Amino acid sequence: MSSTRPLITIDWGTSSLRGARLGASGQVLESREFPRGILTVPPGQFEAVFHELFGDWMQASGALCLISGMAGSRQGWQEAPYCPCPAGFTELGQHLLWLQPGRIALVPGLSCLGTDALNTPDVMRGEEVQIFGALQMAGRDNATLVLPGTHSKWVQVQGGRVTDFQTFMTGEVFALMSQQSILGKTLDLSGAFDEAAFLQGVNQSQQAGSVLHHLFAVRTLGLFERLSATQLPSYLSGLLIGEELRTQTINTDSGAVILVGSNTLTQRYSLALQHLGIACQSHGAEATWAGLFALASAC
Amino acid sequence: MSSTRPLITIDWGTSSLRGARLGASGQVLESREFPRGILTVPPGQFEAVFHELFGDWMQASGALCLISGMAGSRQGWQEAPYCPCPAGFTELGQHLLWLQPGRIALVPGLSCLGTDALNTPDVMRGEEVQIFGALQMAGRDNATLVLPGTHSKWVQVQGGRVTDFQTFMTGEVFALMSQQSILGKTLDLSGAFDEAAFLQGVNQSQQAGSVLHHLFAVRTLGLFERLSATQLPSYLSGLLIGEELRTQTINTDSGAVILVGSNTLTQRYSLALQHLGIACQSHGAEATWAGLFALASAC
Repeated sequence: MSSTRPLITIDWGTSSLRGARLGASGQVLESREFPRGILTVPPGQFEAVFHELFGDWMQASGALCLISGMAGSRQGWQEAPYCPCPAGFTELGQHLLWLQPGRIALVPGLSCLGTDALNTPDVMRGEEVQIFGALQMAGRDNATLVLPGTHSKWVQVQGGRVTDFQTFMTGEVFALMSQQSILGKTLDLSGAFDEAAFLQGVNQSQQAGSVLHHLFAVRTLGLFERLSATQLPSYLSGLLIGEELRTQTINTDSGAVILVGSNTLTQRYSLALQHLGIACQSHGAEATWAGLFALASAC
Repeated sequence: MSSTRPLITIDWGTSSLRGARLGASGQVLESREFPRGILTVPPGQFEAVFHELFGDWMQASGALCLISGMAGSRQGWQEAPYCPCPAGFTELGQHLLWLQPGRIALVPGLSCLGTDALNTPDVMRGEEVQIFGALQMAGRDNATLVLPGTHSKWVQVQGGRVTDFQTFMTGEVFALMSQQSILGKTLDLSGAFDEAAFLQGVNQSQQAGSVLHHLFAVRTLGLFERLSATQLPSYLSGLLIGEELRTQTINTDSGAVILVGSNTLTQRYSLALQHLGIACQSHGAEATWAGLFALASAC
């Protein structure tokens, strides 16, 4: 795959904004990052902010820019309606929302309907390009992917199309419980990651009972001095990541689980998965650029 | 049961302080409530605050005062070590911590060890007197009790003794998720309780999958306009209360589940339990005075 047009790829999220100028084979020529997530941009100012930060890149003749993430949400530049699953690369390309025809487009997020009685909907924005990028890098078109974060996504891909996915509020619950709840009185976030305490939390999460109950053990294990204040955040992290894993039926017939995200998080998920005997491999931020490059090349 | 001594019973919690002067058959002669939970009292000032607020009651000849709740915690008046389960009325009386022998005592909390591989500990403070009070009012010595609140307690009683209990962080998780998380952007806490939305949440919680995933539906059901902003808090409440119920094996051979707490909460738990076909009955704050009266009478 290659492209002869100058390609500019943007990941415009809730709290941060990253951009990369890509070469003809998808290599990153230059990248920029700004604390200008959509929450910092007043309505009607998205185009101005975009040109202020990336206008020089856009001056290249024939430049094409694809923007993924929350910039396509109701609170963003313009709302790009969700592309319903099952959806692959082709459907995503068909649902691009062109802000300037042939020059600047928003990539839509994906939506799916749960298999529960009420078909409860689920949504993602931004992760879809990471998914297709990671699949391409791994040379796979069947996989289970996990994109850990504030709102972790577990994604099923069959024949190159996302058939189903589930969001878990793991990262946000970790932040709230460790900083805002009574657990914050027992634990100390300044310590280093403790692998043994983390795996103890993973083990506990696999036992019978509810995570709403297991969480309280972060307090009592501290009170009874079974774990130190600096070990407790790792235990809490293991409990919550383990709770995600507990409810997943993971099929690795078509290969290892693919993790996409920051090193810190993918390392924890790798530990938990391997502890439960499940093979996995990891990709970082490069999956975003790979996905947007592939999408741009198909435009 | 009766007592010839003037009895003063105090429930000194984290955020509030309630006291009652009881008559010879346990009836409330006078009660007082102050926003003077233990968090508002500087170390070393508990005795002074106590005498400021209840000194007049203590002047009665032979007055006996029992204090339950967080006043007996490490951050309270003095630490009353937990009484280990199984524990009944007798064990609780034996573990009273006398601040002034024969006159003022702190009631200890209870601790138990979980049946999981690591025997994870659990604790309560204050609920133990409500439990024994409610059992006496119900004329039962075998029961499952639920004490909903910030940290809900599910309690097993056999032969008048608490054999096991579990804490769920339900109330605190509800508050954090509805006020501090992204879900707060979709929901509106100002609406009235919506029974249908609540039961929809209870139903959802009984399905396969994790509550960390179900929580995100509070966002998507709002985005897709399946529930209104004012219905979503009731849905969230149903999800979380339902998650408690999902993991309980409830045996009602010896009678209905006994709920002890505020009207608002016991009504929601009643709804959820009845929806799942489980009989229950409710008691309010009077269970605290009944429990402390019975304990004082045995001193």
